[in-house]
Amino acid sequence: MAARTITIKENILGANAEQAEINRKRLDGHHVRMINIMSSPGSGKTSLIMQTIHRFRNKYRIAVIEGDVASSIDADKITQQNIPAIQINTSGGCHLDARMVQTALDGLDLDRIDLIFLENVGNLVCTADFDLGAHKDVVILSVPEGDDKPHKYPVAFIEADAVLVNKIDVLPYFDFNSDTFPEIISGLNPSARLFSLSAKTGEGMERWFSWIEETLS
Amino acid sequence: MAARTITIKENILGANAEQAEINRKRLDGHHVRMINIMSSPGSGKTSLIMQTIHRFRNKYRIAVIEGDVASSIDADKITQQNIPAIQINTSGGCHLDARMVQTALDGLDLDRIDLIFLENVGNLVCTADFDLGAHKDVVILSVPEGDDKPHKYPVAFIEADAVLVNKIDVLPYFDFNSDTFPEIISGLNPSARLFSLSAKTGEGMERWFSWIEETLS
Repeated sequence: MAARTITIKENILGANAEQAEINRKRLDGHHVRMINIMSSPGSGKTSLIMQTIHRFRNKYRIAVIEGDVASSIDADKITQQNIPAIQINTSGGCHLDARMVQTALDGLDLDRIDLIFLENVGNLVCTADFDLGAHKDVVILSVPEGDDKPHKYPVAFIEADAVLVNKIDVLPYFDFNSDTFPEIISGLNPSARLFSLSAKTGEGMERWFSWIEETLS
Repeated sequence: MAARTITIKENILGANAEQAEINRKRLDGHHVRMINIMSSPGSGKTSLIMQTIHRFRNKYRIAVIEGDVASSIDADKITQQNIPAIQINTSGGCHLDARMVQTALDGLDLDRIDLIFLENVGNLVCTADFDLGAHKDVVILSVPEGDDKPHKYPVAFIEADAVLVNKIDVLPYFDFNSDTFPEIISGLNPSARLFSLSAKTGEGMERWFSWIEETLS
């Protein structure tokens, strides 16, 4: 039973990795960069994307792919900003996969886009296993969740290109040790870039914006 | 491909439901009640369990089963309180299942226990699909996550016996509408009991404690 389960998982991940590579090459062919944003529900993925769109909408042509278990709450917020958004509803599925992203890309005019944000399903466990064909994988942890979460849910942090600590405006009200947190991340993933910011107040966002520009240059 | 996936999922869930029923009957035979606690990472599952142990440790014999992707941080906290704790590490798996719980129950002296808390993996999506044999399923949403989460991740809320809004001590710092939230829950799940509390400050905990006593009576 265990062996069979593992084989199925390897087959699924293998097929997914192939599709992810196809997605990435397709994006490269159109000079589009795609950034996959992962976190638990409510860590601030949509707010971060909205603020980043606000900053760069006159410089880059941006689109968003929204992954959700149900509802189109986030995609509606994006389209209200006159930004192209494709909604993927996973019908209960706990993560996006590369094939779902392929279908979403079919709905976008890639010759008129520079940057795609991929907002994954709110889930710190399952999303990290699936390469989607993005050029960068970003994981957000918000202050109220606690500084022990990278040890408890390590995979997303180990594989991320960037780790964002969001909601630093509420640091005074929570037991989150921002002095020792950088060591936790560098212990798990020495090459990850770490950003402390508040998408709500704007504090710390300039460093994140600079990283976006690096990624697009 | 889709049909095959669905068949595999149905088989898995069917086998799980049978094992869950076995677990529940086993607990009933020993007059033990088990409560399954689900939420995203960092919503306050461990804090709630710790405070509930503190309140009832002289009245009921309590044990805890801790589900984690990795680490034994939470189980260590529980055993420091001289409460029996069994750690289940899912090795990356995103939820507990009834068979894992069966194995954990083998490690407990059920004739010396009145109440078991089952702390599920921090995951609002996958945990809700798996009956574990608990008598009550509880889902926690914390204020910083936002009041729109039941619409975005509905399954756990639809199936819960009780919904807890935790961290109400930080309501002034977040955009969480506690006036309209009860309607959101009653719209999804009219029979769910709703509790607003702070496991940190103790506010609202007495109603939760009363519900625990009802569950055990």
